[in-house]
Order: sequence, then C-alpha cells, then structure tokens
Amino acid sequence: MRKIIVDTCGGDNPVAVIKGLSKTLKAVEDVILVAVGDKAQIEEVLAGEEFDRTRLEIVASTEVITNNDHPADAIMRKRGSSMVRGYMRLKTDEDCVAMISAGNTGALIIGGVVLLGRQEGIERPALATVYPTATQKWTCLLDCGANVDCKAHHLLSFAKQGAAYMSATYKIENPKIGLLSVGTEDEKGTALTKETFALLKESGLNFVGNIEGKTLLSGECDVIVSDGYPGNVALKSIEGISHAIVKIFYGLLKKNAGETSDFQFVNRALGEFMSTYDLNSLGGAVLLGVKKQVVKAHGSANENTVVNVVKQILRTLS
Amino acid sequence: MRKIIVDTCGGDNPVAVIKGLSKTLKAVEDVILVAVGDKAQIEEVLAGEEFDRTRLEIVASTEVITNNDHPADAIMRKRGSSMVRGYMRLKTDEDCVAMISAGNTGALIIGGVVLLGRQEGIERPALATVYPTATQKWTCLLDCGANVDCKAHHLLSFAKQGAAYMSATYKIENPKIGLLSVGTEDEKGTALTKETFALLKESGLNFVGNIEGKTLLSGECDVIVSDGYPGNVALKSIEGISHAIVKIFYGLLKKNAGETSDFQFVNRALGEFMSTYDLNSLGGAVLLGVKKQVVKAHGSANENTVVNVVKQILRTLS
Repeated sequence: MRKIIVDTCGGDNPVAVIKGLSKTLKAVEDVILVAVGDKAQIEEVLAGEEFDRTRLEIVASTEVITNNDHPADAIMRKRGSSMVRGYMRLKTDEDCVAMISAGNTGALIIGGVVLLGRQEGIERPALATVYPTATQKWTCLLDCGANVDCKAHHLLSFAKQGAAYMSATYKIENPKIGLLSVGTEDEKGTALTKETFALLKESGLNFVGNIEGKTLLSGECDVIVSDGYPGNVALKSIEGISHAIVKIFYGLLKKNAGETSDFQFVNRALGEFMSTYDLNSLGGAVLLGVKKQVVKAHGSANENTVVNVVKQILRTLS
Repeated sequence: MRKIIVDTCGGDNPVAVIKGLSKTLKAVEDVILVAVGDKAQIEEVLAGEEFDRTRLEIVASTEVITNNDHPADAIMRKRGSSMVRGYMRLKTDEDCVAMISAGNTGALIIGGVVLLGRQEGIERPALATVYPTATQKWTCLLDCGANVDCKAHHLLSFAKQGAAYMSATYKIENPKIGLLSVGTEDEKGTALTKETFALLKESGLNFVGNIEGKTLLSGECDVIVSDGYPGNVALKSIEGISHAIVKIFYGLLKKNAGETSDFQFVNRALGEFMSTYDLNSLGGAVLLGVKKQVVKAHGSANENTVVNVVKQILRTLS
C-alpha cells in the first residue's frame, strides 16, 4: 500500500496535525500514514481516537527544526529532527510516495535538494501553490517564495514544471501559462520578465503572455510563473486580501441588515466561503522538481489540512 | 484662486472625465479647473450642464498620447497633445498647483521628469497609491510600477517620499514604514530587500521591518515600500482580488438566501462596499518627487474619479 509521510513537528499546532492523522485515516482508504515526530505525544493525542491503527506507522524523532533555524545548517546538523528523518525514510522506502510538513520552508526546500535529490534537468526546485479562482477553476502559481533573484531560464523551468503538474493533477491538456508582470503589453516588464517572455514565446508551451496581479483569481491561466519575490507577494496578497475583504463586507452586511432581517443565510454563505477559500486548511504548496512529492503545509496547518493535502497527493497519483 | 489641470484625453472614457469637470465644480468650491483636450468635445459634453463656468478654463490640444505610444517618443514628439500642453501650463502658471491625467502612465512619468522637473535630491520620481484598509486607515504603497529594477537607494528615497506625503496629506506623525518582502523575519528577502532593509534601519525613519503581502490591507503600516514590480503586483492584486472575492461571496449569498429572505440589505452593503473600495473611482496614483503634484487617474476613470482626485489634491494643500 502507498505510504505518505507526515512530519508532525515544525508547524504551529503539532496536536492539530496529529489529530489530522486519525481524521485522514477515517476519510481516506488505501493509504498508510507514516507519522514522524514525538512518539509519546503522538500516542497520547491519538489514545482516545478510533481509527484503523494498522495504517499508521510512527517514527520517533528526537529534535525539531524550528522557523528560527538557519535552513541549511538545520538540515546538516539536526539529523534526528522529524524533517530529516522524514526525508531519509522518503528517500529509502519504495512504498513512500510523498511527505507533508508544516515546518521551516527553507529547510524543507534544501532538504528536498540535499537529502531527496532533484529530478534530472532541474536546477532549482520550485514552490507551487494551487488555489481556486472565481471561475471554479484551479490555478497554479509558482515560484511562491522558494527562489528569489531568479534568472530567466529558471522561470522557463518553473513554467515547464507547473504545466507538467497541472496536466498530471487536474488533467489539463496544454495548460495556459501566464507570466506575472507589471502590464499586459508584450513589451512591459522588468529586465527579468522581458527576457523570460522571449524564452516562453519560443518554448512550445501554451504561453498566453504577460498578466497582471488582477488576473491572479480570474481563472484565465492554469499556470502563473514568477520570480519568488513577486510570486510570494501575490500569494500572500490572495490570503490577506481575501480575509480583509470578507471581513469588511461582512461588517457592512451586519450594519445594513435590519433587526428583523434573516441573517442566517449570510453565516451559511460565510461558512461555505471559508471552507472553499481558506488557504490555511485548503492544502499546501508543492515542491516541484524533486524526486518524490513534497508538500509544504501552511505553518498554521490544522486537522483538515492533513486530510486535504493527503487527498491532493493521491489525486496526482491516480 | 488655485487651479488644477485636467487632461481630458488619454483615458478610456473622455466623456466621463469631461462630465466630471462640472460635477467637481458643483461639489468643490475654491478651485478653478483647467481642462486640456478637444475643445469642441468639451464644450459639447458640457453644453447642457449647469455649473459655475467662470471656474472652468479650456485649453485646446490637437493630438492625444495613447497607451500604445512609446512614452519617451510621445512626450518628445507629440507637442500638441493634451498631456504635453497640460505639463507646459503646469510648469509656467504659478496658480496651477496640480495636474490630473488618466493617460499613458509611462508618458506621464517621463513628462513629469522632462517637462516639469524633479524636486531637488530626487533621482527617480515614484508612483504612489493611497488606499483604504480594513481598519479604516489609509496606506500608501510605492512604487506601484513606474520604477522596476530598482536599487536599494531608490527604495530608501521612496520611503522618504511616501512618509512626507502621508505626513502632509493625512497629518500622520512619523509614519510607519514597512518593506514589502517574502517574509517578516529580518533576514528574509531578496538581495534588493536585504540591502534596503539595512538602509531603512539606519535612516531615522519609523521603519517597522519586513512585511508580507497579507499585511497590505491590514492598516499596520502607513507607507509600504517596494520595487515597482512586486509593488505593481500588490496593487493590481488588491484591485483584482477584491472584486473577485466580493463576486464569489455575493454569489454564495444569493445561493444561500431563501426565496423569502430580505436581500435588499445585501445590495445596500454591496453598494457601500463598491463606493468605498472601488479603486477605479477612488482616486489616483500620485507621482511623487516632481516639482508639482501630478495624479495618474485610473485608465477607466469616470466622473467620480475627477471629483475624488480633486478633493484628494486639495486635502494635501490644506
């Protein structure tokens, strides 16, 4: 049976991640979870839970890579950490298809390169986030912050990786690729985007040209390519702005509703919105270009995150 | 009396901009508008309108700088255009305090440097957008796309210009400055943001450190500084995501409302939201660092834009 490794340390809420293990095993069949972390804590949190214990393995780790650790140092020195032990297991166990971690992003990326290894032809693995748009379609944005100060050939590589992922996961033929820039006109952009534009035009990919930040949620592109700096700004904007706007609009709804107005449907709509567009629990960013699947869950990952990310991984394998 | 120049050409809706002239003169006292554009068109559109005609001057132009024109070429060659004639008037008429244009952004910036001139000590004028946040406070984001491939000393200069503008316009003492980056930790960022971080730290400005895209609408900073590429992505994200989110949420409200539910208050809330957060009509981006105020109105500027931008300019002068 396929195995997915879950690093239970490193995120803000290890207990929630551990609870996510049993929730996942109840929701998803046909997978074994390998939990790497504080063995005593994992056993304690799961003590009262009812689930198929034959599909849970526990691997004990002895230390944690925190967000304050220097990524490369931590990977080299903290050999007993959940992240390093998770990677070693992922590398050596044929049945293990993927790893999920809510830990230090930089360490996870460096571990992917150093401990797991890159796919052939990949210079820089990219961090990709797939999110739902206003048209119900999903869009893949990369790089989301793993690679800053990129060169044009890196962005070309990101485009290829993103297209391959969207083809494999969402069965999209010939995914539409947009280049995140400062205007839609061909000649607009920075030195980097102009050079990348020329490479993408010649690439044989389905390149639709420059796009602006306002197209991020429009669903017009399947893949949006960027250096990790504006890409991270875009991703964090989607998160922050979505929450701010819903908060503002909800406040206005409250203010405008009469005393006798039915407000229940507003709360139902809000609940539906949050469950569809909450990037926290929605899934995770995928590290593309390494030898097996590695998913970086949000630092504030909760029970649902684990369920959703496992489903996301299994979808790519079906 | 103070005069404000309005370039009536260049935007997507010259007729709406012209109608905005009379609307402004009805809403705002103590200002003369100098409309530069197609004289016959201006007179025709305003023929039936009732307003104080002694406070409107019309300057005829003979050509238009379009969005397809190369900015520098257009400023040098289209000497009869509304933008160039507007700038010449702004430069030479002491009573003229500001110019508004919805035209070609690049041409407006180059015109600001070449025709109007930079303030002393300013190497690159910056394009700043001031927008409302979730806490009702206003935040100034710069650069919004005028300057890409910046060096750290440019960003330091943007921070100083933004702080001075927010102090003058919103009477904020010692404005809080954030640096748009890929993480909040001091050591995160690109080569550019790291170097800028060090300069800002030593600058004597009220620098609060690195901020992420999710802080754009939180109101935590008065000024957010960035290279024009991520800055433009951030600004366009705010626009595009706000609209997408409201559209999605409105759809969910419709879906969840019962047949007998009162839906009027939802529409009232939506109307209020749109009038408060619609960047189109809200105002414009300010070109900072040139000798007089120049405001770039949104390409799709409408009647209300003119009213709002004139009010915005007068506020900085009070």
